[in-house]
Amino acid sequence: MSSSRRHFLHSLIAGSATLALPTLMRCARETNRPNILIVFCDDLGYGDLGSFGHPTIRTPHLDRMATGGQKWTSFYAAASVCTPSRAGLLTGRLPVRSGMCSDRRRVLFPDSAKGLPQSETTIARGVKKAGYKTACIGKWHLGHLPPYLPTSHGFDYYFGIPYSNDMDKLRSLSIEQQMDPDINDYNVPLMRNEEIIERPADQHTITRRYSEETIKFIKETRPPWFIYLAHTMVHIPLFASADFSGTSSRGLFGDAVEEIDAGIGDILQALQETGQERNTLIVFTSDNGPWLPFREHGGSAGLLRDGKGTTWEGGMREPTIFYWPARIKPAVVTDIGSTLDLFTTIAHLAGAEIPSDRQMDSYDLAPTLFAGAPSPRREMFYYRGQQLFAVRKGAFKAHFVTMAEYAADNNRQEHDPPLLFNVEHDPGEKFECAARYPDVVADIQRLAAEHNAKMVKGEDQLAARITDTN
Amino acid sequence: MSSSRRHFLHSLIAGSATLALPTLMRCARETNRPNILIVFCDDLGYGDLGSFGHPTIRTPHLDRMATGGQKWTSFYAAASVCTPSRAGLLTGRLPVRSGMCSDRRRVLFPDSAKGLPQSETTIARGVKKAGYKTACIGKWHLGHLPPYLPTSHGFDYYFGIPYSNDMDKLRSLSIEQQMDPDINDYNVPLMRNEEIIERPADQHTITRRYSEETIKFIKETRPPWFIYLAHTMVHIPLFASADFSGTSSRGLFGDAVEEIDAGIGDILQALQETGQERNTLIVFTSDNGPWLPFREHGGSAGLLRDGKGTTWEGGMREPTIFYWPARIKPAVVTDIGSTLDLFTTIAHLAGAEIPSDRQMDSYDLAPTLFAGAPSPRREMFYYRGQQLFAVRKGAFKAHFVTMAEYAADNNRQEHDPPLLFNVEHDPGEKFECAARYPDVVADIQRLAAEHNAKMVKGEDQLAARITDTN
Repeated sequence: MSSSRRHFLHSLIAGSATLALPTLMRCARETNRPNILIVFCDDLGYGDLGSFGHPTIRTPHLDRMATGGQKWTSFYAAASVCTPSRAGLLTGRLPVRSGMCSDRRRVLFPDSAKGLPQSETTIARGVKKAGYKTACIGKWHLGHLPPYLPTSHGFDYYFGIPYSNDMDKLRSLSIEQQMDPDINDYNVPLMRNEEIIERPADQHTITRRYSEETIKFIKETRPPWFIYLAHTMVHIPLFASADFSGTSSRGLFGDAVEEIDAGIGDILQALQETGQERNTLIVFTSDNGPWLPFREHGGSAGLLRDGKGTTWEGGMREPTIFYWPARIKPAVVTDIGSTLDLFTTIAHLAGAEIPSDRQMDSYDLAPTLFAGAPSPRREMFYYRGQQLFAVRKGAFKAHFVTMAEYAADNNRQEHDPPLLFNVEHDPGEKFECAARYPDVVADIQRLAAEHNAKMVKGEDQLAARITDTN
Repeated sequence: MSSSRRHFLHSLIAGSATLALPTLMRCARETNRPNILIVFCDDLGYGDLGSFGHPTIRTPHLDRMATGGQKWTSFYAAASVCTPSRAGLLTGRLPVRSGMCSDRRRVLFPDSAKGLPQSETTIARGVKKAGYKTACIGKWHLGHLPPYLPTSHGFDYYFGIPYSNDMDKLRSLSIEQQMDPDINDYNVPLMRNEEIIERPADQHTITRRYSEETIKFIKETRPPWFIYLAHTMVHIPLFASADFSGTSSRGLFGDAVEEIDAGIGDILQALQETGQERNTLIVFTSDNGPWLPFREHGGSAGLLRDGKGTTWEGGMREPTIFYWPARIKPAVVTDIGSTLDLFTTIAHLAGAEIPSDRQMDSYDLAPTLFAGAPSPRREMFYYRGQQLFAVRKGAFKAHFVTMAEYAADNNRQEHDPPLLFNVEHDPGEKFECAARYPDVVADIQRLAAEHNAKMVKGEDQLAARITDTN
């Protein structure tokens, strides 16, 4: 129990001796523990919000949250592709530990036999055990077979497409065809809990329905609650509902982002209407950078280098906002943070347990969020599949291996000594500087060697296919 | 006289019949006509402010102005290098008309014999004639000989370095040497009015002194006033005062930007202290994009392509803010605007004349600034020297000629048909699309041909050297 909660309880007990203690305990818990909403986009680039520099995408609600809350400018997804990134966020562990990344298949597919192992503890399971009502709304992508679904991983409720929206293709589609998409080409299921309720999912209305489901859960659930709203957009194929289609000056990609933003506006209004705005932490971020091969249908990493699938900054650094007007003092935070840190940060706020029987990779960001202290995270490990490609420590990032393209396998380059960039001076990773900072190189080499030596990799959960195991 | 001013006068007259009309007239003029402050940076890239997406440059004052005012995201300098860009801003005319751009020397140098011709009318001259007190503080670069100085062009007062801060080099300096600069290598003069008061100018304190001079003028001048604050920074060589040096996480470039931002904070405070905040329009922008050959000492164009010296978006699109809490309703404006438009916009606000004997290239942005109407500017002409390289109309931009590098002359490529980009969908100019939009190409070709056919180019004012004319 945090000292502030102890203090609060003490005041309560001292001031009202006639109430029974169990009542007080429950009351204090419910008053102190915030609702938590994570909004997790798909393939949104660092530069795809107005407040992160996009000239023609309008995101007024997120921009207001960015100025009214904390805008984190060096916040990293746990991986540069969907499945491992999501595993990292929900478990607070590098996906390589849970085996939720692979050098063979980078993500789960509809023919995948496995998913997030039951031996992993999600933050949902943690906060549920601590008394939260929990919902996963949106893209799951951690296993679509029953033992791996959200309802098997601590979520009371699930509504969404369980994997990427470009899967279950009924015919082979070129990049051009996927840029002018027809929902009927993508036979993806829409699920409620463990049941498929629509197939193919009507992706035109998927963003709106995710927002509506979120609002419904907010309105009907007694606090405290935890919602993980993982939008299917802006993963290819892009769709927007009739109200948004053709309305943005950034084209279909902008329509899709703006519909997400509008949904957030509606959610904020619902929080206000239900008197929960002062008691809800909202975290906004994305799973990885923009999917660049899809040209203008992919997003933009802004000034960062490259995008989805790579360990360049554009692949893993995400536009991130923490918003909680009652507790978070507005700031721009340039220190390092990661979706990996949400586990511990949320567990502390929710009074949930942090597993002590396994290696976590998760820092409690509370000192930064609530007291303006430097971020406790000083380093970031960038994996591609099961291999450590790069390490950032403080301002410097060393690349031991680089691969430029998402799909191509032939651009792999090993670097010894590593390529070094000062990503605070040079966030675009343009100016290699290893020769100027031999001590920094040696220091990061040591850190990487220690990390690799101690690393116990989990068994690859992504490679197995349903046909393999039958 | 605008209808609102007429209405205001009418109310005054109707309500106070005992006052004499001349008194009322003066009173109304003084009440209605705002002070105007243009803050014009040097070589600041589109992505170099926090509110325009830079992760590690902190610009809290400008960010506050961006959210409390209008953030223009498609606002263009008149050219991609200093001298023509400044000529365009101050005259409201494409610099090719005044001859303030050249295919031989791109800017003025200390040995240049000429400058902005007396036949040109600056906005300073216009507002001065209309009763404003006028000051130019900072970099001039429109001629350093007496007939061309600010005091010969409508400014009551001048304080600053009259050309670029990397000129008057006392020895040949490599790029590396210029990135670790010594003020004594740059024998640039600091002037007050027509006199040199310091040489070499102490560039460490130049930003601070420009801000202080601005505040002094604000405090000591009876409104209405017009100040053109043209910072010497962040042109190479970079300097910051002791209070800022080494303080930003972006390095020296960040220190210099943050010192400009802090100065703006002090100016805002001075406006508040003197009760002028509600009656002052502030426009913030820059002369051209980042000077990329100077690596991390150059800025960043964010997601835009290329930088200073080019007609790619990174060369001419600038982070721009219009701030006037009493009149401007906060908004993000994605429509096109240009420094060329400041002449007419300001002239209307100040009750100054707009020259009728010459071709202007300046739109009144008032309907957008004060009423949220679409911008009256629908097109932009991108010149390099005296040649039209590119034209934007609406969302589309056609490049007839491109040159990739600032200094190199060997990358010149002519394009027939032109390269076409949708810079609203694709602000990074990555996805050429001429084949998809033949009608758009034809339309812009027509527009360019008409423009070229009507263009009367001024005599080149930049080529002549003092030695030539002696």
